[in-house]
Amino acid sequence: MKKRNCFIGQSGGPTVAINASLAGIIDECINSQQYDHVYGMINGIMGLLESRYMDLLEVFSNPQSLQQLKHSPAMYLGSCRYKLPDIQDDPQTYQNLFHTLEKLEITDFFYIGGNDSMDTVAKLSAYAKSIHSPICFVGIPKTIDNDLMGTDHTPGFGSAAKYVATSMLEIAYDSSIYKLNAVTIVEIMGRNAGWLTAASALARTQYNQAPDLIYLPEAPFSTQKFLDDIREVFRHKKNIIIAVSEGIKDENGEYLDSDSKYTKRDAFGHVLHSGTGKVLESLVFQEFQCKVRSIELNVLQRCAMHIASKVDLDESFQIGQHAVKASMAGHTGIMMVFQRVQNHPYQIEYTYKDVFEIANLEQRIPLHWINDQHNDITQELYDYLYPLIQGEVTITYENGIPCYSDISHLRYK
Amino acid sequence: MKKRNCFIGQSGGPTVAINASLAGIIDECINSQQYDHVYGMINGIMGLLESRYMDLLEVFSNPQSLQQLKHSPAMYLGSCRYKLPDIQDDPQTYQNLFHTLEKLEITDFFYIGGNDSMDTVAKLSAYAKSIHSPICFVGIPKTIDNDLMGTDHTPGFGSAAKYVATSMLEIAYDSSIYKLNAVTIVEIMGRNAGWLTAASALARTQYNQAPDLIYLPEAPFSTQKFLDDIREVFRHKKNIIIAVSEGIKDENGEYLDSDSKYTKRDAFGHVLHSGTGKVLESLVFQEFQCKVRSIELNVLQRCAMHIASKVDLDESFQIGQHAVKASMAGHTGIMMVFQRVQNHPYQIEYTYKDVFEIANLEQRIPLHWINDQHNDITQELYDYLYPLIQGEVTITYENGIPCYSDISHLRYK
Repeated sequence: MKKRNCFIGQSGGPTVAINASLAGIIDECINSQQYDHVYGMINGIMGLLESRYMDLLEVFSNPQSLQQLKHSPAMYLGSCRYKLPDIQDDPQTYQNLFHTLEKLEITDFFYIGGNDSMDTVAKLSAYAKSIHSPICFVGIPKTIDNDLMGTDHTPGFGSAAKYVATSMLEIAYDSSIYKLNAVTIVEIMGRNAGWLTAASALARTQYNQAPDLIYLPEAPFSTQKFLDDIREVFRHKKNIIIAVSEGIKDENGEYLDSDSKYTKRDAFGHVLHSGTGKVLESLVFQEFQCKVRSIELNVLQRCAMHIASKVDLDESFQIGQHAVKASMAGHTGIMMVFQRVQNHPYQIEYTYKDVFEIANLEQRIPLHWINDQHNDITQELYDYLYPLIQGEVTITYENGIPCYSDISHLRYK
Repeated sequence: MKKRNCFIGQSGGPTVAINASLAGIIDECINSQQYDHVYGMINGIMGLLESRYMDLLEVFSNPQSLQQLKHSPAMYLGSCRYKLPDIQDDPQTYQNLFHTLEKLEITDFFYIGGNDSMDTVAKLSAYAKSIHSPICFVGIPKTIDNDLMGTDHTPGFGSAAKYVATSMLEIAYDSSIYKLNAVTIVEIMGRNAGWLTAASALARTQYNQAPDLIYLPEAPFSTQKFLDDIREVFRHKKNIIIAVSEGIKDENGEYLDSDSKYTKRDAFGHVLHSGTGKVLESLVFQEFQCKVRSIELNVLQRCAMHIASKVDLDESFQIGQHAVKASMAGHTGIMMVFQRVQNHPYQIEYTYKDVFEIANLEQRIPLHWINDQHNDITQELYDYLYPLIQGEVTITYENGIPCYSDISHLRYK
């Protein structure tokens, strides 16, 4: 009776919610009772090209293991940074890929990822159309950067935002203990979009004013204005906490960490940089000769499952389920999206958009959500962010540490 | 009827457990029904010199607020890095301090802190003896570094160790996703003692081998041996995770981050350094030309209350209670300590030692708890560490972030 078979892949950088989307897809495939095989490609489209895949229904046949997958960080299926060539440049690659898909009688192809992964979905669905293949290609968004077009926000962002807000609060407590002039600079991920840095504002409570200043890559950054801002805050308080995006640029459009010893680029040509906090730390120390510390939150922003947002994980699971429904209804060349219905109470709807309108574009913070001084966010942006970090996830601990899914299939010699 | 009054102070760097000890002291003072006043000095002994203190029984009269204090990171009373002068050099400071203590009819003086704080307890109790003052001076240990002599381990260490182990596990998952040669270096706090770096081994599970290599400051570090170790691990696996203490020194006894732009020292003359991970990152990249990332866990090791160890918080609370009992029994010039009775099941006893035998000394990892290759720990050290990170703490969340005690009294203009 059953006659559907699907492939699922994950690509791009990890988040704590990308496995929740994988779990949602598997869950809906099982519930629909339409699928003979649910295959997972290992290391994304790269793995498919190398015929490395696994049978997911076998591994996740019991609900507990699926629940554990929902609560496991990073990417169960592994990732790749391989970018598909343009079809006209290398038709052979596409022929090989579709040969594998047809051999396995694949009906649906689900790809969970960010901007670059949606480029893959767009290219594959375009090729499928050109050869009249009936396979449906559906993208499921994920990125801690929240910079995808067409969706209210992205799966994975809420948990990263909750980690940033919680860490900012705990750093503020940590920094409060001495009676002396001090500046703490917290460097937060986000190359071109400041959403995650903006989320540090969610740390503010009736007891905590930090961060005192917030700098986002969407607004031009002036080192002189930055030092003047600090001088102004020092007039009211001794202890200043600053949230800064790794991707801020100076007046000449240069990243602040341009003095790094070597520049690395990923497979998509993006410069990999770090050190903005260190550059600012040095600047502040030279100007004020006070205690200065810079803290780079680093990869824990995207892998700290133990402090995930329940709203984020639940939505990420459900968008996976909706992806299966959309594909079974025959939609292809789409990316699943969230549409916000209202903030009070918070409510979203699941729908989809043409992936060609989304791939390779970036959603940045609109300037009217940044204050006039360019050193804080507006109430509107706070209200947008607030619902996304609500709720805590109960994870299982064993031997004092979290108990996550077995990923030994990703161990390579 | 009541006639006891006490002072409590906190000093040194923060941990997530130091407020649990404060809560334990307050709790026992209330339970004993012997105390008219429980004063908290604000910013440690510095605050007492400046007559800045608060009435803690007023603030923590209800059990909920005391419970919240137990689950709040950093230091409710603030800290200082002020070192008391030698008595013969500056008797006036001691006369001033004891004038305040006598004016308030103080019977007990509790000081929660690390090595330098025990120096304060030693000096004050010596002075008290010299002037025949009946005030009891009791030290309560705390430090994430676990480097105090005389106690099996220190309050605050277990929670930091749990943070390190959990983060190491999550970083291992994060690093597993690509099929390529990669080295991830995790830099962990610990200037002279490697206990916290060693705790990264608690991240190992049946699914996770990380960290593959561990480097501690107790063993001499050779950069050539380090690169050879990595080459050896690359023979079995592509993805290598390394735990390294910030305080490792090269063959010449130099800290690896000696190329830092400026050297800062704290009030006790300790060099404040960072950047060991970055130095190693550069070394590895030059040698192997592979993907390399260094991650500095930074202050979250000592302030991430949201992932505290239940064993640690409970012990830290109880050692505070025992400090009050010891003081009421007339003991002075002591530091409270843990004595381990057994590992299976884990059991400790609370007792105390002469603070003069403890202050200004450091407890480092014995060399027989480090493997012969100097790149891992032994099973004995694992067994010692294991019980200290067990159990999770249920903290209260509000608006998506943890709900900690009000510390607005530490906000200075």
